Amino acid sequence: MNVLWLYAHPEARSLNGALRRTGIETLAELGHEVRESDLYAMRWNPVVDSADFTDHAPGERLVVGAAAKHAYETDTLSADVRGELDKLAWADAIVIQFPLWWYGMPAILKGWFDRVFVKGLAYGIRHPELPGRTLRYGEGMLAGKRAMVVLSAGSGGSAFGPRGINGQLDQALFPLLHGTLWYTGMDVLPPLATYGADRVSDEQYEDASAMLRKRLAGLGTDAPLAYRSQNGGDYDDDLVLRPDHAPSESGLGVHLHR
Amino acid sequence: MNVLWLYAHPEARSLNGALRRTGIETLAELGHEVRESDLYAMRWNPVVDSADFTDHAPGERLVVGAAAKHAYETDTLSADVRGELDKLAWADAIVIQFPLWWYGMPAILKGWFDRVFVKGLAYGIRHPELPGRTLRYGEGMLAGKRAMVVLSAGSGGSAFGPRGINGQLDQALFPLLHGTLWYTGMDVLPPLATYGADRVSDEQYEDASAMLRKRLAGLGTDAPLAYRSQNGGDYDDDLVLRPDHAPSESGLGVHLHR
Repeated sequence: MNVLWLYAHPEARSLNGALRRTGIETLAELGHEVRESDLYAMRWNPVVDSADFTDHAPGERLVVGAAAKHAYETDTLSADVRGELDKLAWADAIVIQFPLWWYGMPAILKGWFDRVFVKGLAYGIRHPELPGRTLRYGEGMLAGKRAMVVLSAGSGGSAFGPRGINGQLDQALFPLLHGTLWYTGMDVLPPLATYGADRVSDEQYEDASAMLRKRLAGLGTDAPLAYRSQNGGDYDDDLVLRPDHAPSESGLGVHLHR
Repeated sequence: MNVLWLYAHPEARSLNGALRRTGIETLAELGHEVRESDLYAMRWNPVVDSADFTDHAPGERLVVGAAAKHAYETDTLSADVRGELDKLAWADAIVIQFPLWWYGMPAILKGWFDRVFVKGLAYGIRHPELPGRTLRYGEGMLAGKRAMVVLSAGSGGSAFGPRGINGQLDQALFPLLHGTLWYTGMDVLPPLATYGADRVSDEQYEDASAMLRKRLAGLGTDAPLAYRSQNGGDYDDDLVLRPDHAPSESGLGVHLHR
């Protein structure tokens, strides 16, 4: 497979830096092709503004979605965004590695999605048959690709369990796993977390490294999270889950098949 | 009250830009003092790196939490971060306004929290009495302040309902509302959303504007979200909700008192 490794950490001599090297070596040993976006090393600009859209007239009102769609379709996105789109088109799978900051991605990585996941590619694709619906949540231009999140967290793991105070991990990551990756049609593997990241012993590091190697061995074959597809019949025309699915339940968990 | 209006949108001639002006005028009419952080206008740098910590020796390994805590305690954070810390210290309430991008904040705003919510202020405060616990989730240095999120979303509102495909709004925003604002001890008001943001009619705009004015009138008095405090007895030593609270339930909803 072709694998894009998307990475955001400011210090190479870190737990994340060590796991990144292990991960990329492992993918090569497994026979995969790897390309990288090491966002700090690239000094990636995470801020969407009119400079992303080289065709945008100075002084013209900026409507981000419309400007992005026009620029994507006319190949007038800024060069750095086009470079990332090329990598994304090339990739069969994408690994997204970061330290969890305020229960989300570091800004430099959030801004990769803000800038690269443009309208016309990642959202706003009309459904060819269902009026008023778009291709998203299980369908879309990135369908067929796989995605896996690899993160570190300062907290212990129990706090990310089903009743842990930080929120169950896959639900705390819902905006990324479901709202971004699944939204664009990708198959999303369960996230891999290393907990207690500021105090990892050598033995714990070996465990984390072994788990990463194991998960990368399954990158092409492991079962993805069983999110429901938007247009497969489970949701009504208001995009609300029909009452016969997970009846009387609510919360983010209802969006997974059980 | 002293109110900090934290705002992230690249275009002043937008729905968000119009609501921002209404909001700031309303606060002034109500007799509040207002300061602003208009992040796009400020060309705010959202990327944490060693330049944030002016005392950091070149070539030294960067451990973000430790470096931030040292810099905060020795007043050696970069000038832009210190400027925001001054506004935050001054504020009794903070309004956080943004368009929802990929179910989260635009990167420029996420990076405000990444850079300004430093260790020693926003996290890593040892509990004075409970060994191994920190002051967070309802307690902390920012306790006593109020926070309200004001956002726009392209989608319709039903998709953000309890069984809507985007996830229930307060749960989709859990990393910000609970994991960031409540984490630091602030009282978090229910978020205010304007849906269908790309196709708001004049009448809908009037409704959104009226709702914003109403919510700002209650900024100091409306009931906050009833999140459970970490150290109030509801969570065990592993920070898991004790079985007598919301028994047999799981998911993000259990962290609210019912």
